[in-house]
Amino acid sequence: MAVQKNAERSELPIGIFDSGVGGLTVYRALHDRLPNEHFVYLGDTARVPYGTKSLATVEKYALENAQFLANYGIKILVVACNTASALALPAIRARIGLEVVGVIGPGGRRAITVANCEAPKIGVIATEATVRSGAYVEAVHKSCSEAVVFQTACPLFVPLAEEGWAEESETASIAERYLADMREFTPDALVLGCTHYPILHDVIQRTVGPDVTLVDSGKATAEEVASLLKSTGLASPRKISGERSLCDDLDHFFVTDAAERFASVAERFLGVKPAKLEAIEVPALT
Amino acid sequence: MAVQKNAERSELPIGIFDSGVGGLTVYRALHDRLPNEHFVYLGDTARVPYGTKSLATVEKYALENAQFLANYGIKILVVACNTASALALPAIRARIGLEVVGVIGPGGRRAITVANCEAPKIGVIATEATVRSGAYVEAVHKSCSEAVVFQTACPLFVPLAEEGWAEESETASIAERYLADMREFTPDALVLGCTHYPILHDVIQRTVGPDVTLVDSGKATAEEVASLLKSTGLASPRKISGERSLCDDLDHFFVTDAAERFASVAERFLGVKPAKLEAIEVPALT
Repeated sequence: MAVQKNAERSELPIGIFDSGVGGLTVYRALHDRLPNEHFVYLGDTARVPYGTKSLATVEKYALENAQFLANYGIKILVVACNTASALALPAIRARIGLEVVGVIGPGGRRAITVANCEAPKIGVIATEATVRSGAYVEAVHKSCSEAVVFQTACPLFVPLAEEGWAEESETASIAERYLADMREFTPDALVLGCTHYPILHDVIQRTVGPDVTLVDSGKATAEEVASLLKSTGLASPRKISGERSLCDDLDHFFVTDAAERFASVAERFLGVKPAKLEAIEVPALT
Repeated sequence: MAVQKNAERSELPIGIFDSGVGGLTVYRALHDRLPNEHFVYLGDTARVPYGTKSLATVEKYALENAQFLANYGIKILVVACNTASALALPAIRARIGLEVVGVIGPGGRRAITVANCEAPKIGVIATEATVRSGAYVEAVHKSCSEAVVFQTACPLFVPLAEEGWAEESETASIAERYLADMREFTPDALVLGCTHYPILHDVIQRTVGPDVTLVDSGKATAEEVASLLKSTGLASPRKISGERSLCDDLDHFFVTDAAERFASVAERFLGVKPAKLEAIEVPALT
Protein backbone atom coordinates (compact mmCIF):
# COMPACT_ATOMS: atom_id res chain seq x y z
CA MET A 1 0.00 0.00 0.00
CA ALA A 2 2.73 2.43 1.05
CA VAL A 3 4.71 1.41 -2.03
CA GLN A 4 1.73 2.03 -4.30
CA LYS A 5 1.16 5.43 -2.72
CA ASN A 6 4.82 6.32 -3.23
CA ALA A 7 4.51 5.30 -6.90
CA GLU A 8 1.79 7.92 -7.31
CA ARG A 9 3.69 10.51 -5.31
CA SER A 10 6.85 9.91 -7.32
CA GLU A 11 5.19 11.65 -10.27
CA LEU A 12 4.86 14.88 -8.29
CA PRO A 13 7.39 17.70 -8.62
CA ILE A 14 10.09 18.57 -6.10
CA GLY A 15 9.23 21.82 -4.32
CA ILE A 16 11.90 24.49 -3.80
CA PHE A 17 11.52 27.79 -2.05
CA ASP A 18 13.89 30.68 -1.51
CA SER A 19 13.61 34.25 -0.29
CA GLY A 20 14.11 35.40 -3.88
CA VAL A 21 16.30 34.67 -6.87
CA GLY A 22 19.35 33.19 -5.06
CA GLY A 23 17.77 29.74 -4.83
CA LEU A 24 18.00 29.46 -8.60
CA THR A 25 21.57 28.23 -8.09
CA VAL A 26 20.10 25.38 -6.00
CA TYR A 27 17.46 24.76 -8.66
CA ARG A 28 20.22 24.52 -11.27
CA ALA A 29 22.19 22.03 -9.14
CA LEU A 30 19.05 19.88 -8.63
CA HIS A 31 18.12 20.08 -12.30
CA ASP A 32 21.62 19.06 -13.39
CA ARG A 33 21.76 16.13 -10.95
CA LEU A 34 18.17 14.93 -11.46
CA PRO A 35 17.21 15.42 -15.12
CA ASN A 36 14.14 13.15 -14.83
CA GLU A 37 12.54 15.25 -12.09
CA HIS A 38 10.45 18.33 -12.49
CA PHE A 39 10.35 21.25 -10.10
CA VAL A 40 8.12 23.92 -8.67
CA TYR A 41 10.03 26.96 -7.40
CA LEU A 42 8.70 29.73 -5.17
CA GLY A 43 10.76 32.94 -4.81
CA ASP A 44 9.43 35.20 -2.04
CA THR A 45 10.49 38.36 -3.87
CA ALA A 46 7.93 40.54 -2.07
CA ARG A 47 9.71 39.98 1.23
CA VAL A 48 13.32 39.41 0.20
CA PRO A 49 15.91 39.57 1.81
CA TYR A 50 15.59 37.23 4.82
CA GLY A 51 19.25 37.57 5.86
CA THR A 52 18.76 40.76 7.86
CA LYS A 53 15.43 39.76 9.46
CA SER A 54 14.58 38.24 12.84
CA LEU A 55 13.99 34.59 13.70
CA ALA A 56 10.25 35.10 14.23
CA THR A 57 9.78 36.85 10.88
CA VAL A 58 11.88 34.37 8.89
CA GLU A 59 9.99 31.46 10.48
CA LYS A 60 6.60 32.99 9.64
CA TYR A 61 7.54 33.65 6.00
CA ALA A 62 9.14 30.21 5.61
CA LEU A 63 6.06 28.40 6.96
CA GLU A 64 3.78 30.30 4.60
CA ASN A 65 6.00 29.41 1.63
CA ALA A 66 6.22 25.74 2.65
CA GLN A 67 2.44 25.52 3.03
CA PHE A 68 1.90 27.11 -0.39
CA LEU A 69 4.08 24.46 -2.05
CA ALA A 70 2.54 21.63 -0.02
CA ASN A 71 -0.91 22.76 -1.23
CA TYR A 72 0.36 22.87 -4.82
CA GLY A 73 1.33 19.22 -4.51
CA ILE A 74 4.99 18.19 -4.16
CA LYS A 75 6.76 15.01 -3.09
CA ILE A 76 9.59 16.57 -1.10
CA LEU A 77 10.52 20.12 -0.13
CA VAL A 78 13.95 21.69 -0.58
CA VAL A 79 14.51 24.85 1.46
CA ALA A 80 17.04 26.57 -0.81
CA CYS A 81 17.39 29.66 1.36
CA ASN A 82 20.28 29.35 3.82
CA THR A 83 18.70 31.76 6.29
CA ALA A 84 15.40 29.85 6.30
CA SER A 85 17.30 26.55 6.54
CA ALA A 86 19.22 27.90 9.53
CA LEU A 87 16.20 29.27 11.36
CA ALA A 88 13.01 27.52 10.29
CA LEU A 89 13.63 23.85 9.42
CA PRO A 90 12.19 22.36 12.64
CA ALA A 91 9.05 24.51 12.35
CA ILE A 92 8.55 23.52 8.69
CA ARG A 93 9.03 19.81 9.46
CA ALA A 94 6.50 20.06 12.28
CA ARG A 95 3.94 21.66 9.98
CA ILE A 96 4.02 19.75 6.70
CA GLY A 97 3.98 15.96 6.42
CA LEU A 98 6.77 15.71 3.86
CA GLU A 99 10.49 15.13 3.77
CA VAL A 100 12.18 18.52 4.09
CA VAL A 101 15.80 19.08 3.02
CA GLY A 102 17.66 22.27 3.89
CA VAL A 103 20.96 23.39 2.38
CA ILE A 104 22.96 23.71 5.60
CA GLY A 105 23.17 20.06 6.70
CA PRO A 106 24.34 18.89 3.26
CA GLY A 107 26.79 21.83 2.98
CA GLY A 108 28.31 21.10 6.39
CA ARG A 109 28.64 17.35 5.70
CA ARG A 110 30.15 17.94 2.28
CA ALA A 111 32.77 20.29 3.75
CA ILE A 112 34.01 17.52 6.07
CA THR A 113 34.10 15.00 3.20
CA VAL A 114 36.13 17.21 0.87
CA ALA A 115 38.48 18.43 3.66
CA ASN A 116 39.29 14.75 4.14
CA CYS A 117 41.55 15.03 7.21
CA GLU A 118 41.38 14.40 10.95
CA ALA A 119 40.95 17.87 12.38
CA PRO A 120 39.78 19.87 9.39
CA LYS A 121 39.64 23.65 9.27
CA ILE A 122 36.32 24.69 7.76
CA GLY A 123 35.53 28.23 6.61
CA VAL A 124 31.96 29.44 6.17
CA ILE A 125 30.84 32.61 4.38
CA ALA A 126 27.16 33.57 4.63
CA THR A 127 24.67 36.33 5.46
CA GLU A 128 24.69 38.01 8.88
CA ALA A 129 21.63 36.01 10.02
CA THR A 130 23.08 32.66 8.97
CA VAL A 131 26.42 33.41 10.63
CA ARG A 132 24.69 34.58 13.82
CA SER A 133 22.53 31.45 13.92
CA GLY A 134 25.60 29.21 14.18
CA ALA A 135 23.75 26.62 12.07
CA TYR A 136 26.75 25.77 9.87
CA VAL A 137 29.03 25.44 12.89
CA GLU A 138 26.56 22.97 14.38
CA ALA A 139 26.19 21.05 11.10
CA VAL A 140 29.95 20.76 10.67
CA HIS A 141 30.45 19.60 14.27
CA LYS A 142 27.73 16.96 13.88
CA SER A 143 29.86 15.37 11.16
CA CYS A 144 33.20 15.92 12.88
CA SER A 145 33.52 17.21 16.42
CA GLU A 146 37.26 17.94 15.92
CA ALA A 147 36.66 20.44 13.11
CA VAL A 148 37.62 24.08 13.67
CA VAL A 149 35.15 26.47 12.06
CA PHE A 150 35.68 30.13 11.15
CA GLN A 151 32.77 32.21 9.82
CA THR A 152 32.53 35.59 8.04
CA ALA A 153 29.47 37.52 6.84
CA CYS A 154 29.80 39.08 3.36
CA PRO A 155 26.68 41.29 3.07
CA LEU A 156 27.67 43.05 -0.18
CA PHE A 157 28.09 39.77 -2.09
CA VAL A 158 24.30 39.45 -2.53
CA PRO A 159 23.71 42.83 -4.23
CA LEU A 160 26.92 42.39 -6.24
CA ALA A 161 25.70 39.00 -7.53
CA GLU A 162 22.26 40.42 -8.33
CA GLU A 163 23.90 43.28 -10.25
CA GLY A 164 25.79 40.60 -12.21
CA TRP A 165 29.16 42.06 -11.13
CA ALA A 166 31.06 38.74 -11.06
CA GLU A 167 34.08 40.06 -12.95
CA GLU A 168 34.22 43.73 -11.94
CA SER A 169 37.38 44.91 -10.18
CA GLU A 170 35.35 46.37 -7.27
CA THR A 171 34.00 42.90 -6.52
CA ALA A 172 37.53 41.50 -6.36
CA SER A 173 38.56 44.33 -4.07
CA ILE A 174 35.55 43.85 -1.78
CA ALA A 175 36.26 40.10 -1.69
CA GLU A 176 39.86 40.87 -0.63
CA ARG A 177 38.55 42.98 2.22
CA TYR A 178 35.91 40.48 3.41
CA LEU A 179 38.13 37.41 3.05
CA ALA A 180 41.47 38.67 4.44
CA ASP A 181 40.95 36.98 7.83
CA MET A 182 39.55 33.88 6.13
CA ARG A 183 42.66 33.53 3.98
CA GLU A 184 44.81 33.85 7.09
CA PHE A 185 42.76 31.04 8.69
CA THR A 186 43.82 28.79 5.73
CA PRO A 187 40.71 26.62 5.63
CA ASP A 188 40.78 23.16 4.06
CA ALA A 189 37.29 23.77 2.70
CA LEU A 190 35.24 26.94 2.37
CA VAL A 191 31.44 26.64 2.39
CA LEU A 192 29.54 29.08 0.15
CA GLY A 193 26.77 29.44 2.73
CA CYS A 194 24.47 31.73 0.75
CA THR A 195 22.70 30.80 -2.47
CA HIS A 196 24.00 33.90 -4.25
CA TYR A 197 27.65 33.15 -3.65
CA PRO A 198 28.11 30.47 -6.37
CA ILE A 199 27.59 33.34 -8.85
CA LEU A 200 30.82 34.82 -7.42
CA HIS A 201 32.58 31.41 -7.28
CA ASP A 202 35.54 32.41 -9.46
CA VAL A 203 36.40 35.67 -7.71
CA ILE A 204 36.09 33.95 -4.31
CA GLN A 205 38.38 31.13 -5.48
CA ARG A 206 40.97 33.62 -6.77
CA THR A 207 40.82 35.51 -3.47
CA VAL A 208 41.33 32.55 -1.13
CA GLY A 209 43.74 30.76 -3.47
CA PRO A 210 43.67 27.43 -5.34
CA ASP A 211 44.40 25.25 -2.27
CA VAL A 212 41.02 25.94 -0.69
CA THR A 213 38.19 23.68 -1.90
CA LEU A 214 34.96 25.64 -2.30
CA VAL A 215 31.79 23.83 -1.24
CA ASP A 216 28.58 24.74 -3.04
CA SER A 217 25.79 23.91 -0.58
CA GLY A 218 23.32 23.71 -3.47
CA LYS A 219 25.29 20.95 -5.20
CA ALA A 220 25.74 19.09 -1.90
CA THR A 221 21.97 19.34 -1.38
CA ALA A 222 21.27 17.96 -4.86
CA GLU A 223 23.39 14.88 -4.02
CA GLU A 224 21.47 14.27 -0.80
CA VAL A 225 18.11 14.77 -2.52
CA ALA A 226 19.14 12.18 -5.11
CA SER A 227 19.92 9.64 -2.35
CA LEU A 228 16.69 10.44 -0.53
CA LEU A 229 14.56 9.92 -3.65
CA LYS A 230 16.21 6.54 -4.18
CA SER A 231 15.87 5.36 -0.59
CA THR A 232 12.22 6.42 -0.31
CA GLY A 233 11.16 5.12 -3.73
CA LEU A 234 10.13 8.64 -4.73
CA ALA A 235 12.38 9.00 -7.79
CA SER A 236 10.43 9.93 -10.89
CA PRO A 237 9.57 7.03 -13.24
CA ARG A 238 10.06 9.45 -16.17
CA LYS A 239 13.05 8.81 -18.44
CA ILE A 240 13.99 11.90 -20.37
CA SER A 241 16.41 11.20 -23.19
CA GLY A 242 19.00 13.74 -24.19
CA GLU A 243 19.74 17.01 -22.44
CA ARG A 244 16.93 18.82 -20.63
CA SER A 245 16.99 22.61 -20.69
CA LEU A 246 16.84 24.70 -17.52
CA CYS A 247 13.54 26.52 -17.01
CA ASP A 248 11.67 24.50 -19.64
CA ASP A 249 7.90 24.12 -19.41
CA LEU A 250 8.12 21.09 -17.09
CA ASP A 251 9.23 23.45 -14.30
CA HIS A 252 6.85 25.92 -12.74
CA PHE A 253 8.07 29.16 -11.16
CA PHE A 254 6.15 31.38 -8.74
CA VAL A 255 7.18 34.73 -7.28
CA THR A 256 5.41 36.89 -4.72
CA ASP A 257 6.33 40.11 -6.58
CA ALA A 258 8.06 41.74 -9.55
CA ALA A 259 8.06 38.79 -11.96
CA GLU A 260 9.81 40.83 -14.63
CA ARG A 261 12.83 41.56 -12.47
CA PHE A 262 12.94 37.88 -11.42
CA ALA A 263 12.97 36.83 -15.06
CA SER A 264 15.85 39.13 -15.91
CA VAL A 265 17.95 38.06 -12.90
CA ALA A 266 17.12 34.42 -13.76
CA GLU A 267 18.51 35.05 -17.22
CA ARG A 268 21.67 36.52 -15.66
CA PHE A 269 22.06 33.52 -13.30
CA LEU A 270 20.95 30.65 -15.58
CA GLY A 271 21.26 32.06 -19.09
CA VAL A 272 17.54 31.60 -19.74
CA LYS A 273 14.18 32.99 -18.59
CA PRO A 274 11.58 30.66 -17.00
CA ALA A 275 9.02 29.40 -19.52
CA LYS A 276 6.30 29.20 -16.84
CA LEU A 277 6.45 32.10 -14.37
CA GLU A 278 3.55 33.47 -12.30
CA ALA A 279 3.26 36.22 -9.69
CA ILE A 280 1.06 35.09 -6.79
CA GLU A 281 0.28 36.05 -3.21
CA VAL A 282 1.29 33.53 -0.54
CA PRO A 283 -1.67 33.22 1.86
CA ALA A 284 -1.16 33.84 5.57
CA LEU A 285 -1.42 30.71 7.71
CA THR A 286 -4.70 29.99 9.43
CA MET B 1 -13.79 76.04 15.63
CA ALA B 2 -11.32 74.93 12.95
CA VAL B 3 -8.68 77.13 14.58
CA GLN B 4 -9.28 75.59 17.98
CA LYS B 5 -9.09 72.12 16.48
CA ASN B 6 -5.78 72.98 14.83
CA ALA B 7 -4.47 74.26 18.17
CA GLU B 8 -5.08 70.81 19.64
CA ARG B 9 -3.71 69.04 16.60
CA SER B 10 -0.56 71.18 16.65
CA GLU B 11 0.58 69.33 19.75
CA LEU B 12 0.63 66.01 17.87
CA PRO B 13 3.84 64.61 16.41
CA ILE B 14 4.80 64.63 12.73
CA GLY B 15 4.59 61.12 11.30
CA ILE B 16 7.36 59.77 9.06
CA PHE B 17 7.53 56.41 7.38
CA ASP B 18 10.16 54.75 5.28
CA SER B 19 10.82 51.27 3.96
CA GLY B 20 13.62 50.92 6.51
CA VAL B 21 16.52 52.91 7.89
CA GLY B 22 17.12 55.28 4.95
CA GLY B 23 14.38 57.67 6.06
CA LEU B 24 16.48 58.53 9.10
CA THR B 25 18.28 61.07 6.89
CA VAL B 26 14.89 62.73 6.32
CA TYR B 27 14.15 62.53 10.06
CA ARG B 28 17.47 64.25 10.74
CA ALA B 29 16.69 67.03 8.25
CA LEU B 30 13.23 67.57 9.79
CA HIS B 31 14.62 67.49 13.32
CA ASP B 32 17.33 70.04 12.47
CA ARG B 33 14.89 72.38 10.74
CA LEU B 34 12.04 72.02 13.27
CA PRO B 35 13.51 71.67 16.76
CA ASN B 36 10.18 72.36 18.48
CA GLU B 37 8.43 69.43 16.81
CA HIS B 38 8.42 65.83 17.88
CA PHE B 39 8.29 62.86 15.55
CA VAL B 40 7.02 59.34 15.23
CA TYR B 41 8.99 57.25 12.76
CA LEU B 42 8.00 53.91 11.26
CA GLY B 43 10.64 51.84 9.43
CA ASP B 44 9.14 48.88 7.56
CA THR B 45 12.23 46.74 8.09
CA ALA B 46 10.31 43.45 7.70
CA ARG B 47 9.57 44.27 4.07
CA VAL B 48 12.51 46.45 3.03
CA PRO B 49 13.60 47.18 0.28
CA TYR B 50 10.75 48.73 -1.75
CA GLY B 51 13.00 49.84 -4.63
CA THR B 52 12.90 46.50 -6.44
CA LYS B 53 9.19 45.80 -5.84
CA SER B 54 6.09 46.34 -7.98
CA LEU B 55 3.67 49.25 -7.90
CA ALA B 56 0.87 47.15 -6.37
CA THR B 57 3.08 45.83 -3.57
CA VAL B 58 4.65 49.20 -2.74
CA GLU B 59 1.19 50.80 -2.64
CA LYS B 60 -0.19 48.12 -0.31
CA TYR B 61 2.75 48.40 2.12
CA ALA B 62 2.68 52.22 2.02
CA LEU B 63 -1.05 52.36 2.79
CA GLU B 64 -0.63 50.01 5.75
CA ASN B 65 2.21 52.14 7.13
CA ALA B 66 0.28 55.39 6.65
CA GLN B 67 -2.78 53.94 8.40
CA PHE B 68 -0.66 52.74 11.33
CA LEU B 69 0.73 56.25 11.86
CA ALA B 70 -2.69 57.88 11.38
CA ASN B 71 -4.07 55.57 14.10
CA TYR B 72 -1.15 56.49 16.39
CA GLY B 73 -2.14 60.14 16.08
CA ILE B 74 -0.12 62.55 13.93
CA LYS B 75 -0.76 66.00 12.50
CA ILE B 76 0.88 65.54 9.11
CA LEU B 77 2.53 62.62 7.34
CA VAL B 78 5.92 62.70 5.65
CA VAL B 79 6.56 59.84 3.24
CA ALA B 80 10.35 59.67 3.53
CA CYS B 81 10.74 56.74 1.14
CA ASN B 82 11.37 57.92 -2.43
CA THR B 83 9.91 54.76 -3.95
CA ALA B 84 6.70 55.08 -1.90
CA SER B 85 6.56 58.81 -2.71
CA ALA B 86 6.91 57.99 -6.40
CA LEU B 87 4.29 55.26 -6.48
CA ALA B 88 1.82 55.63 -3.62
CA LEU B 89 1.18 59.29 -2.77
CA PRO B 90 -2.23 59.60 -4.47
CA ALA B 91 -3.46 56.39 -2.79
CA ILE B 92 -2.25 57.55 0.64
CA ARG B 93 -3.88 60.97 0.22
CA ALA B 94 -7.14 59.30 -0.77
CA ARG B 95 -7.10 57.08 2.31
CA ILE B 96 -6.05 59.29 5.24
CA GLY B 97 -7.54 62.70 6.00
CA LEU B 98 -4.23 64.44 6.64
CA GLU B 99 -1.72 66.55 4.77
CA VAL B 100 0.78 64.19 3.14
CA VAL B 101 4.21 65.36 1.99
CA GLY B 102 6.45 63.15 -0.15
CA VAL B 103 10.13 63.74 -0.83
CA ILE B 104 9.98 63.87 -4.62
CA GLY B 105 8.00 67.08 -5.18
CA PRO B 106 10.22 69.08 -2.79
CA GLY B 107 13.40 67.53 -4.27
CA GLY B 108 12.36 68.36 -7.83
CA ARG B 109 11.37 71.95 -6.97
CA ARG B 110 14.57 72.53 -5.01
CA ALA B 111 16.68 71.32 -7.96
CA ILE B 112 15.14 74.00 -10.18
CA THR B 113 15.71 76.69 -7.53
CA VAL B 114 19.37 75.89 -6.99
CA ALA B 115 20.09 75.40 -10.71
CA ASN B 116 18.88 78.99 -11.09
CA CYS B 117 18.97 79.29 -14.89
CA GLU B 118 16.55 79.26 -17.81
CA ALA B 119 16.93 75.78 -19.23
CA PRO B 120 18.54 73.91 -16.36
CA LYS B 121 20.11 70.46 -16.69
CA ILE B 122 18.95 68.33 -13.76
CA GLY B 123 20.49 64.99 -12.85
CA VAL B 124 18.64 62.45 -10.71
CA ILE B 125 20.12 59.37 -9.04
CA ALA B 126 17.72 56.93 -7.38
CA THR B 127 16.62 53.28 -7.07
CA GLU B 128 15.50 51.33 -10.14
CA ALA B 129 11.82 51.67 -9.17
CA THR B 130 12.02 55.43 -8.64
CA VAL B 131 13.86 55.95 -11.94
CA ARG B 132 11.39 53.73 -13.79
CA SER B 133 8.43 55.63 -12.30
CA GLY B 134 9.59 58.88 -13.88
CA ALA B 135 8.28 60.73 -10.80
CA TYR B 136 11.30 63.05 -10.49
CA VAL B 137 11.18 63.90 -14.18
CA GLU B 138 7.54 64.87 -13.77
CA ALA B 139 8.23 66.88 -10.59
CA VAL B 140 11.08 68.80 -12.24
CA HIS B 141 8.99 69.55 -15.35
CA LYS B 142 6.12 70.82 -13.21
CA SER B 143 8.48 73.50 -11.89
CA CYS B 144 10.21 74.21 -15.19
CA SER B 145 9.06 72.70 -18.47
CA GLU B 146 12.35 73.69 -20.17
CA ALA B 147 14.50 71.58 -17.85
CA VAL B 148 16.43 68.64 -19.30
CA VAL B 149 16.52 65.67 -16.93
CA PHE B 150 18.94 62.73 -16.95
CA GLN B 151 18.41 59.81 -14.55
CA THR B 152 20.63 56.94 -13.37
CA ALA B 153 19.87 54.07 -10.98
CA CYS B 154 22.64 53.28 -8.48
CA PRO B 155 21.47 50.02 -6.84
CA LEU B 156 24.67 49.28 -4.90
CA PHE B 157 24.64 52.66 -3.11
CA VAL B 158 21.99 51.40 -0.65
CA PRO B 159 23.89 48.35 0.63
CA LEU B 160 27.14 50.38 0.63
CA ALA B 161 25.52 53.08 2.80
CA GLU B 162 24.05 50.45 5.14
CA GLU B 163 27.48 48.84 5.49
CA GLY B 164 28.80 52.29 6.43
CA TRP B 165 31.27 52.27 3.52
CA ALA B 166 31.22 56.03 2.87
CA GLU B 167 35.01 56.38 2.65
CA GLU B 168 36.09 53.01 1.24
CA SER B 169 37.94 53.03 -2.09
CA GLU B 170 35.51 50.49 -3.59
CA THR B 171 32.65 52.93 -3.03
CA ALA B 172 34.55 55.66 -4.89
CA SER B 173 35.26 53.25 -7.72
CA ILE B 174 31.61 52.10 -7.93
CA ALA B 175 30.52 55.75 -7.91
CA GLU B 176 32.88 56.44 -10.83
CA ARG B 177 31.28 53.61 -12.77
CA TYR B 178 27.66 54.59 -12.00
CA LEU B 179 28.17 58.33 -12.52
CA ALA B 180 30.38 58.43 -15.62
CA ASP B 181 27.46 59.27 -17.95
CA MET B 182 26.04 61.68 -15.38
CA ARG B 183 29.33 63.59 -15.22
CA GLU B 184 29.34 63.80 -19.01
CA PHE B 185 25.82 65.24 -18.87
CA THR B 186 27.24 68.09 -16.68
CA PRO B 187 24.09 68.74 -14.63
CA ASP B 188 23.55 72.09 -12.91
CA ALA B 189 21.99 70.26 -9.98
CA LEU B 190 22.00 66.58 -9.00
CA VAL B 191 19.12 65.24 -6.93
CA LEU B 192 19.98 62.56 -4.36
CA GLY B 193 16.72 60.73 -5.04
CA CYS B 194 17.08 57.96 -2.46
CA THR B 195 17.14 58.49 1.29
CA HIS B 196 20.35 56.48 1.66
CA TYR B 197 22.37 58.62 -0.72
CA PRO B 198 23.05 61.58 1.63
CA ILE B 199 25.22 59.12 3.61
CA LEU B 200 27.43 58.97 0.49
CA HIS B 201 27.19 62.75 -0.14
CA ASP B 202 30.94 63.39 -0.05
CA VAL B 203 32.00 60.60 -2.39
CA ILE B 204 29.20 61.55 -4.83
CA GLN B 205 30.32 65.21 -4.74
CA ARG B 206 33.94 64.22 -5.39
CA THR B 207 32.85 62.02 -8.30
CA VAL B 208 30.71 64.59 -10.13
CA GLY B 209 32.97 67.53 -9.26
CA PRO B 210 32.52 70.72 -7.25
CA ASP B 211 30.48 72.58 -9.90
CA VAL B 212 27.46 70.34 -9.46
CA THR B 213 25.10 71.33 -6.63
CA LEU B 214 23.79 68.25 -4.81
CA VAL B 215 20.14 68.41 -3.74
CA ASP B 216 19.18 66.46 -0.63
CA SER B 217 15.46 65.72 -1.05
CA GLY B 218 15.15 65.26 2.72
CA LYS B 219 16.36 68.80 3.43
CA ALA B 220 14.10 70.19 0.69
CA THR B 221 11.20 68.32 2.27
CA ALA B 222 11.99 69.74 5.73
CA GLU B 223 11.78 73.27 4.27
CA GLU B 224 8.37 72.58 2.72
CA VAL B 225 7.07 70.95 5.90
CA ALA B 226 8.13 74.06 7.85
CA SER B 227 6.13 76.28 5.45
CA LEU B 228 3.15 73.96 5.59
CA LEU B 229 3.07 73.94 9.39
CA LYS B 230 3.13 77.73 9.39
CA SER B 231 0.42 78.17 6.75
CA THR B 232 -1.92 75.65 8.36
CA GLY B 233 -1.40 76.81 11.94
CA LEU B 234 -0.12 73.36 12.87
CA ALA B 235 3.33 74.40 14.14
CA SER B 236 3.99 73.16 17.65
CA PRO B 237 3.42 75.70 20.46
CA ARG B 238 6.36 74.14 22.32
CA LYS B 239 9.50 76.26 22.68
CA ILE B 240 12.52 74.14 23.34
CA SER B 241 15.50 76.16 24.49
CA GLY B 242 19.01 75.13 23.56
CA GLU B 243 19.96 72.30 21.25
CA ARG B 244 17.72 69.25 21.05
CA SER B 245 19.41 65.87 20.57
CA LEU B 246 18.48 63.51 17.76
CA CYS B 247 16.57 60.40 18.87
CA ASP B 248 15.78 61.78 22.34
CA ASP B 249 12.75 60.48 24.22
CA LEU B 250 10.38 63.00 22.59
CA ASP B 251 10.67 60.99 19.37
CA HIS B 252 9.13 57.55 19.05
CA PHE B 253 10.54 54.94 16.64
CA PHE B 254 8.77 51.82 15.39
CA VAL B 255 10.14 49.06 13.19
CA THR B 256 8.38 46.04 11.74
CA ASP B 257 11.39 43.78 12.38
CA ALA B 258 14.94 43.44 13.68
CA ALA B 259 15.02 46.42 16.07
CA GLU B 260 18.60 45.68 17.06
CA ARG B 261 19.92 46.01 13.53
CA PHE B 262 17.89 49.22 13.08
CA ALA B 263 19.44 50.66 16.22
CA SER B 264 22.96 49.93 15.07
CA VAL B 265 22.41 51.37 11.58
CA ALA B 266 20.74 54.40 13.21
CA GLU B 267 23.89 54.87 15.24
CA ARG B 268 25.96 54.69 12.04
CA PHE B 269 23.70 57.24 10.26
CA LEU B 270 22.94 59.64 13.13
CA GLY B 271 25.65 58.99 15.69
CA VAL B 272 23.11 57.91 18.31
CA LYS B 273 20.62 55.09 18.99
CA PRO B 274 16.89 55.87 19.40
CA ALA B 275 15.84 56.25 23.05
CA LYS B 276 12.34 54.93 22.30
CA LEU B 277 12.34 52.05 19.81
CA GLU B 278 9.69 49.33 19.48
CA ALA B 279 9.22 46.39 17.13
CA ILE B 280 5.58 46.09 16.06
CA GLU B 281 3.46 44.41 13.39
CA VAL B 282 1.70 46.75 10.95
CA PRO B 283 -1.89 45.47 10.60
CA ALA B 284 -3.27 44.63 7.17
CA LEU B 285 -5.94 47.05 5.95
CA THR B 286 -9.55 46.08 6.41
